[in-house]
Amino acid sequence: MTAQIYDYDLLVIGSGPAGQTGALGASKLRKRVAIVDRKWPAGKSSFANGTIASKTLREAVLNGLRQRTFPSCTAKQDGTISMADLNSRVEAVIRGETELIKSQLDHHHVARIEGEATFVDAHTVKVSAGQGSRLVTAENFLIAVGTRPASNNHVPLDGEHIYNSDQFLSLRSLPHDLIIVGAGLVGIEYASLLAALGVKVTLIDQRPELLSFVDREIVDNFTSHLAQLGVSFRLGQEVVECGIGSDHRVFAKLAKGETIHGESLLYTIGRQGNTDQLNLAAVGLKSAESGKLVVDEQFRTSVPNIYGAGDVIGFPIEGLYYGSISMEQGRLASCNIFGFPAVSRPHLFPYALYGIPEISMVGQSEQDLIARTPYEVGIARYGDLTKAQILGAKQGFLKLLFHADSLKVLGVHIIGEGAAEIVHIGQTAISFGATIEYFRDAVFNHPTLAEAYQLAALDGLRKVGMEL
Amino acid sequence: MTAQIYDYDLLVIGSGPAGQTGALGASKLRKRVAIVDRKWPAGKSSFANGTIASKTLREAVLNGLRQRTFPSCTAKQDGTISMADLNSRVEAVIRGETELIKSQLDHHHVARIEGEATFVDAHTVKVSAGQGSRLVTAENFLIAVGTRPASNNHVPLDGEHIYNSDQFLSLRSLPHDLIIVGAGLVGIEYASLLAALGVKVTLIDQRPELLSFVDREIVDNFTSHLAQLGVSFRLGQEVVECGIGSDHRVFAKLAKGETIHGESLLYTIGRQGNTDQLNLAAVGLKSAESGKLVVDEQFRTSVPNIYGAGDVIGFPIEGLYYGSISMEQGRLASCNIFGFPAVSRPHLFPYALYGIPEISMVGQSEQDLIARTPYEVGIARYGDLTKAQILGAKQGFLKLLFHADSLKVLGVHIIGEGAAEIVHIGQTAISFGATIEYFRDAVFNHPTLAEAYQLAALDGLRKVGMEL
Repeated sequence: MTAQIYDYDLLVIGSGPAGQTGALGASKLRKRVAIVDRKWPAGKSSFANGTIASKTLREAVLNGLRQRTFPSCTAKQDGTISMADLNSRVEAVIRGETELIKSQLDHHHVARIEGEATFVDAHTVKVSAGQGSRLVTAENFLIAVGTRPASNNHVPLDGEHIYNSDQFLSLRSLPHDLIIVGAGLVGIEYASLLAALGVKVTLIDQRPELLSFVDREIVDNFTSHLAQLGVSFRLGQEVVECGIGSDHRVFAKLAKGETIHGESLLYTIGRQGNTDQLNLAAVGLKSAESGKLVVDEQFRTSVPNIYGAGDVIGFPIEGLYYGSISMEQGRLASCNIFGFPAVSRPHLFPYALYGIPEISMVGQSEQDLIARTPYEVGIARYGDLTKAQILGAKQGFLKLLFHADSLKVLGVHIIGEGAAEIVHIGQTAISFGATIEYFRDAVFNHPTLAEAYQLAALDGLRKVGMEL
Repeated sequence: MTAQIYDYDLLVIGSGPAGQTGALGASKLRKRVAIVDRKWPAGKSSFANGTIASKTLREAVLNGLRQRTFPSCTAKQDGTISMADLNSRVEAVIRGETELIKSQLDHHHVARIEGEATFVDAHTVKVSAGQGSRLVTAENFLIAVGTRPASNNHVPLDGEHIYNSDQFLSLRSLPHDLIIVGAGLVGIEYASLLAALGVKVTLIDQRPELLSFVDREIVDNFTSHLAQLGVSFRLGQEVVECGIGSDHRVFAKLAKGETIHGESLLYTIGRQGNTDQLNLAAVGLKSAESGKLVVDEQFRTSVPNIYGAGDVIGFPIEGLYYGSISMEQGRLASCNIFGFPAVSRPHLFPYALYGIPEISMVGQSEQDLIARTPYEVGIARYGDLTKAQILGAKQGFLKLLFHADSLKVLGVHIIGEGAAEIVHIGQTAISFGATIEYFRDAVFNHPTLAEAYQLAALDGLRKVGMEL
């Protein structure tokens, strides 16, 4: 045993997804590790940027929609999900999640420290809680403090009529009509959920198209679904001013001249890294634009024993936050810190958008393949699946991209119920170099949504003249 | 082109899962094929033995349960799902399913013939519909006529107080308390669904244990869940008499002396092959016990051009019907008939039991492995998954069985929401010889139930001292 000149081998700052996996990874390497966060249990908004809130809301909405497939329930659904319902459910889920995290950390002998950490030097932080503070030393640090909604001078947030996603849960009731500014992941998820609940939504974004990294057919399908739910789009349009008018209604003035009105406005553009609270100056680190922490491919900052992971280091795809990617980054950072070889295969990362309907994908897109690789497409429509009929979830499709010669599966793109779950079947197939013949020959449980793989494979094989 | 001395290369009798895939398989081989059934669209009970009915009922019940996670909905759920709701939903789903099948057959140029088929000779059937009849000839036949609930002299079915699963949908209301005789797949699915709806169920079976082919820990978990829902068990007990007493209540007398009482009785024991309506004598075929058709490994009867597939040839596991297995059999039979090589890997078939909670499995069981293969077990509890917390579906677990030395995945056993879907991730991994390290290294969408694979893999790796 070497002399233990520091309290810990690793001190993790922040207990979100990246912090958790970073700490657990170090613990599994038999390192002495602690995790510091302001509050145990943490509050609503500190949990993975509202992941739980929006996903819990989503389940509520889906239940409402499913229930409507039974005639005696048709009329009464719209009003059933109140903000109070949602809040109590979110709080219950967060309580459960907090206990889970705590017990997992305890089980792996990760020390939990409560308080606000600020750097004193490259091996010391001061942890302040209430009136007291103490110094904690560590050989290495992992900064995983996450982000918060960015503020914007043009947008006078009051948390009541004009609010961000963290403030959303404090609302007393759902608005009748809502302006959503920003069509990133958060904006789009809320637009689809609230529209499904009967809120009249106008979605505004500067960018001319939605979700540029997603398969075009899936975006078209999703957009038309939103339009059916009554969502109005103002794409390629910038908000130059917003506020509350003399009629007590919110207005948003667009650069092109139009003014949109609504009961309230949800502002979802930009997130600010929480590095400003760490006193990074003490170790000679500066954070980049919007408080983002700059790291290299090893997740190391310019100070050799200080690493960063999670959304504080920026998003892999612009504007999009994914808890699973943060978890992977935390794990990899922890391996790097202690020189343990770690495998990462970013081309096999799945992505999910938990809207209504759900979208998920893995592997390459048509945009990636076109003009580079001879590929073909096999499609299965949810309307052709018994399970989707039973669920009343007939909208959606699964698209298999495969190499036209070798038949190897190259990408899977899904829009529809269960997309984020069943995409892992395709992920596993791609990981092992499967051809679409695998899906033809496999026996699937019936009825399941997973059967879409078989239908898509048969469609693909038909296109290349190899149906049987 | 050879002379076409017969109307069709293949005539399929029966339009269930085996008949459909048999006909489509032949069509894909460019054969002239027709499918004959009594009615297009077929009626409620002829659809995959009530698969749609029980699965649609199940979704209704699950919605009710999910809705209860919202406090304002707590009180009112029990009465929400009426038989009328259920029936209208089932009818809608069946209509959709029928249209689907018809359009798929049409798309593949499979002729659809309406009427009752009886054999005239080994190449001719008489098809009778209404007053008329006509002869149809074919080079080959595939019998896929399915089964119906067997009758039993001791059980005076009246369709109202004492009924089988086909009669269940004609009920006007759910019973307050119900005796279920037979704990096969149908008995167990209905027991769990109805108990979840608040029906007081007593489940009786001659066999001393439930689901002997299912992992013991999963059966224990399932049984305890049923017990929590108020299900009473009478296992290892035989019903010697049942009927309606002078108090207008149903009674079931057990061999050991006890008499059980209930508002009604659902009889689920035994199914009878529908071969008695085919005039098999005309081709010299006899059906075996309970009307089952005897076929060899090629699905061929003792008449060389007549094949059989689906549940009319018996169940792969005693008493258990699986639509997906019938579909596979139809496909294989069709390949065999026309000498086309077909791959089948029965050791990779998944099995699912759509109870509440859902059960599914693929690969080997502990019973298979014990004393033969050095294996280890990795377990993930649903309570440890964020997604399960959000769904309010914290009961359940996923169990990975893997080779203790090579770490290859050998079996996956799941009880809990989404089991029948996510089992295909494990199925794909087993098919490609994956080790559990694959699940450690893969990135999963968060939050999903699929993350259970990663937790289970980490648990397993810890057990063999290879956590990182």
